Amino acid sequence: MHRIEVEAEVDLLAENKRLAEENRKFFKEKGILAVNIMGAIGSGKTLLIEKTIERLNDLKVGAILGDVVCKADYERVSRHGIKAEAINTGKECHLDAHLVHHKIRKFEDVDILLIENVGNLICPVDFDLGEDLRVVMVSVTEGDDVVEKHPKIFTIADVVIINKVRLAEFVGADVEKMKRDVEKLNSRAKLILMDLKEGIGLEEWINYLRDEYVSRNSG
Amino acid sequence: MHRIEVEAEVDLLAENKRLAEENRKFFKEKGILAVNIMGAIGSGKTLLIEKTIERLNDLKVGAILGDVVCKADYERVSRHGIKAEAINTGKECHLDAHLVHHKIRKFEDVDILLIENVGNLICPVDFDLGEDLRVVMVSVTEGDDVVEKHPKIFTIADVVIINKVRLAEFVGADVEKMKRDVEKLNSRAKLILMDLKEGIGLEEWINYLRDEYVSRNSG
Ligand SMILES: Nc1nc2c(ncn2[C@@H]2O[C@H](COP(=O)(O)OP(=O)(O)OP(=O)(O)O)[C@@H](O)[C@H]2O)c(=O)[nH]1
Ligand SMILES: Nc1nc2c(ncn2[C@@H]2O[C@H](COP(=O)(O)OP(=O)(O)OP(=O)(O)O)[C@@H](O)[C@H]2O)c(=O)[nH]1
Ligand SMILES: [Mg+2]
Ligand SMILES: [Mg+2]
Ligand SMILES: [Zn+2]
Ligand SMILES: [Zn+2]
Repeated sequence: MHRIEVEAEVDLLAENKRLAEENRKFFKEKGILAVNIMGAIGSGKTLLIEKTIERLNDLKVGAILGDVVCKADYERVSRHGIKAEAINTGKECHLDAHLVHHKIRKFEDVDILLIENVGNLICPVDFDLGEDLRVVMVSVTEGDDVVEKHPKIFTIADVVIINKVRLAEFVGADVEKMKRDVEKLNSRAKLILMDLKEGIGLEEWINYLRDEYVSRNSG
Repeated sequence: MHRIEVEAEVDLLAENKRLAEENRKFFKEKGILAVNIMGAIGSGKTLLIEKTIERLNDLKVGAILGDVVCKADYERVSRHGIKAEAINTGKECHLDAHLVHHKIRKFEDVDILLIENVGNLICPVDFDLGEDLRVVMVSVTEGDDVVEKHPKIFTIADVVIINKVRLAEFVGADVEKMKRDVEKLNSRAKLILMDLKEGIGLEEWINYLRDEYVSRNSG
């Protein structure tokens, strides 16, 4: 039984890899910067997307909102008048390249495609979506051990956002410890301390994203 | 490929069910109340266990702490001088009956065994551990849509704890909405509004747990 299980997983991941490369090719051809936003449940992924749409108004932003069920995030984001699509995974705890593949044609003409993954710090790690950038978002209210407890996802991140920093004192979280944990796991990642309700770190994120878009679409 | 995958899952779940029943039989024979504490990352599961140990000092409490990696929760709980065991799932996002099965002999003489599942609101649903009670713990800081977005796990809960209620105003969460969402999904579950830092709801939880222990061990 175990053998079948392992084989099935290998097939699944190989197939995912193949479709991820197709997605990646599509994004490249169309000049789209695709961003996979992973993170804990409620860490602020959708609010980040909403704020990005508001602030990045010189570029055309699209969004894919992944959730197990329901379209709440899709509805929140759609209100901002951009192209958006919902993906419901049913009972899967992560997006995969196949689910994303079915949605991307619609986004041909966007500059930046923000893909909100399912709230989970474990399983999305294994599933490349074909994205250009991987963002991992946690918040201090999950406790300051959230980084050390989920090391794998931080090692694959291009950007790590520690959100809700203004609430650190209420949960007794040591933000500096969280920073050190990220740096130990991945010194290459761009690290942003953020509080979306207070506007902290948003400028830094917007500038980073715009720079990434520009540098990939020049030369 | 998909067919193999589905078959493997069925085998896996059937095998889990079998081992869960073995665990359940063991708990029953030894008069142990086993509690599966599921919940979002950082919702307060370990703090709940710590407070329960402190307050339930007329009963012998043991704890199993599940995490993907690391023993941080195990160390926190061990400091209280009770029997405890850590389970690291490696890369799985949930405990299963097999992992728990390997640990239970040690807890023969406890009255209440608290099992902290991996922080995840999706996958633990499918894996019965042989427990008597299922607790699902979320906190308001995850957003007031956390219940409606993960309906399945609330339908299997005996107890639902909404924690960190004192932080609701800081994230703009409507606690009454969360309550209504739980009641809609599962009117049978015991619902506790809690703030562990402020001691809110703790008394209610302790009394509930003690009553469950007593009623199952009499007659
Ligand atoms: N105080 C504070 N609240 C925040 C911040 N960011 C998000 N929130 C709140 O946190 C809750 C969750 O935010 P969302 O944007 O829905 O988080 P998410 O990661 O998309 O959540 P899921 O999709 O359900 O996993 C909401 O109540 C937000 O208003 C922040 O920086 N500070
Ligand atoms: N303000 C406030 N903070 C809380 C409450 N409960 C827990 N916390 C804080 O929230 C963070 C996470 O608590 P934990 O007990 O580690 O949560 P957990 O569910 O065990 O977390 P994981 O095992 O990592 O999934 C810690 O910083 C706690 O101090 C509460 O009711 N109110
Ligand atoms: Mg969201
Ligand atoms: Mg814990
Ligand atoms: Zn899963
Ligand atoms: Zn998973």
